[in-house]
Amino acid sequence: MGAGEDGNAGYGQKRFRRSKSHFADRITADGRDGWPVEAGRYRLVVSRACPWASRALVSRRLLGLEEALPLAVADPIQDDRSWRFTLDPDGRDPVLGIRYLSEAYDRRESDYPGGVSVPAIVDVPSGKLVTNDYQRITLDFATEWTALHREGAPDLYPRALREEIDKVMAEVYEDVNNGVYRAGFAADQEEYDAACAGVFWRLDLLATRLARQRYLVGDTITEADIRLFTTLVRFDAVYHGHFKCNRWKLAENEVLWAYLRDLYQTPGFGDTVDFDHIKRHYYQVHTGINPTGIVPIGPDLSGWSAPHHREELGGRPFGDGTPPGPVPAAEAVPAHHRPSC
Amino acid sequence: MGAGEDGNAGYGQKRFRRSKSHFADRITADGRDGWPVEAGRYRLVVSRACPWASRALVSRRLLGLEEALPLAVADPIQDDRSWRFTLDPDGRDPVLGIRYLSEAYDRRESDYPGGVSVPAIVDVPSGKLVTNDYQRITLDFATEWTALHREGAPDLYPRALREEIDKVMAEVYEDVNNGVYRAGFAADQEEYDAACAGVFWRLDLLATRLARQRYLVGDTITEADIRLFTTLVRFDAVYHGHFKCNRWKLAENEVLWAYLRDLYQTPGFGDTVDFDHIKRHYYQVHTGINPTGIVPIGPDLSGWSAPHHREELGGRPFGDGTPPGPVPAAEAVPAHHRPSC
Repeated sequence: MGAGEDGNAGYGQKRFRRSKSHFADRITADGRDGWPVEAGRYRLVVSRACPWASRALVSRRLLGLEEALPLAVADPIQDDRSWRFTLDPDGRDPVLGIRYLSEAYDRRESDYPGGVSVPAIVDVPSGKLVTNDYQRITLDFATEWTALHREGAPDLYPRALREEIDKVMAEVYEDVNNGVYRAGFAADQEEYDAACAGVFWRLDLLATRLARQRYLVGDTITEADIRLFTTLVRFDAVYHGHFKCNRWKLAENEVLWAYLRDLYQTPGFGDTVDFDHIKRHYYQVHTGINPTGIVPIGPDLSGWSAPHHREELGGRPFGDGTPPGPVPAAEAVPAHHRPSC
Repeated sequence: MGAGEDGNAGYGQKRFRRSKSHFADRITADGRDGWPVEAGRYRLVVSRACPWASRALVSRRLLGLEEALPLAVADPIQDDRSWRFTLDPDGRDPVLGIRYLSEAYDRRESDYPGGVSVPAIVDVPSGKLVTNDYQRITLDFATEWTALHREGAPDLYPRALREEIDKVMAEVYEDVNNGVYRAGFAADQEEYDAACAGVFWRLDLLATRLARQRYLVGDTITEADIRLFTTLVRFDAVYHGHFKCNRWKLAENEVLWAYLRDLYQTPGFGDTVDFDHIKRHYYQVHTGINPTGIVPIGPDLSGWSAPHHREELGGRPFGDGTPPGPVPAAEAVPAHHRPSC
């Protein structure tokens, strides 16, 4: 993400509002929007700091789309031109040849007045942005990119459960995924109080649900788990302090902390997470709420690989499928950006 | 406290420095500085938000000095003239008749250029400030005000243990009491990193020490415990988030959390604590690090009265003495400013 949320964008206006994705073309099996699913044609641009982009990172890993859809990782610190490729040699994405993600936006629509956000998928031949629709991209990975899935890929959006998955995801979006932002960028005490109360009200309900079942819907990992994971994994590191969602740490909630570690330890989840990018992004970019830009040394990240015992609840993580293989070497998160044990 | 530390006073300069107390006259049994110990003559001015002032609150309760040394409680939110009596009718302290603590400073020394801080002791007949020496005031309560101590008052600074108490207090001051401020008001990452590492380095050492013994020095409560308590009781509520001392919450450290609850549940400690004043003061006054002034809803304050089992370590809280009686009604902290259970 990034458009309409970062820096002081949300803070200072009466109410934090998340921008709608402007570019909502879909990449589909039948190519009806002009963008057919095709191996090697597109490039996924993410920031590992961003929970919305991280959904795509997890989904792509679980489905084995790494080769079919190569990855560009932006610097966790945007500048005034937004997401940039300063982690790459010469500060340019080696495939797209651009320094800023905004260049792909400009090629798609000149003088586009909106913000630049991740996740974004860029058409490599034309260099044009195809979509930044964070709510749609991963659903299309699960349902439209099937021809390119790895053998043993799980069904992350099973048809029979979609109604329930959609309902859970909508509640989690409102109160948790976006709720933490509304709390963090609240313009006044009243707005913060309401948002933060909503966060913990929903987390309490989720903990009750997850005390009985290993995953949110059905007995396998679905898109709903991915979307909850990408917020929970950031919770103690940034939302608890920086966004003041501090009724308790997840590490203090037995059920949610075990659920989070279970997913974190599942191939395709934890191996996408970069705590260095996460912490530096939030604390250094949002100077409206952290003027010093100082990045806290905490929280202690030990304990992420401790036994979670969630397998006792039953459940089959990948259903009839299998776990994904190892992370491609070029995409590995540096060891010092991850929990030490 | 308040002088040289609050608002942006510390932040922005190269290194946070705590001001020395300027007025260091002592109130003694023999009156050698011109200020003899005398029941009803002086007034103790505190903020319940302030850890330095709260030492005096605890010490005064344990020793039973409430009647001999009446109390004025300042508003937790200073304005540009510093601590003020806006909690009192007409915004004036009913005994001193002043609206701002600074007026007592001015009567003592005209055009005093320093800051105004609590704890402060004011001579009622002349309206003059006697001392704001936070390091000395409570030691004098323990050793000079003995004629006015209640029956059964403990010895908080026993002669035989002073060397050890002084050593422990000096270490706790440097790394913990003042360390959290150096972390919170650090001007840059390097300064923060060093201060925050020092906080947790010392807390780890203290936890090791307190795993074996109920109190810091000897087997009874001493001044050393009071000084550690007033920082620890604020830790999860403000230092963890607001000052970024977030390696872990105290509630996550078994030994320190039990030690803290033990003291909190001891008459004279928890009954002086006002979480509403604490949270509003830090989050609303320090706009240099919390520009929105929003006060977090957390942390969850349940659990403070849970059993701590520290009595299994032995120890005699009050030595040969007894616990203090109930809080004078006029000084009771409102129930909704305290943990619910």
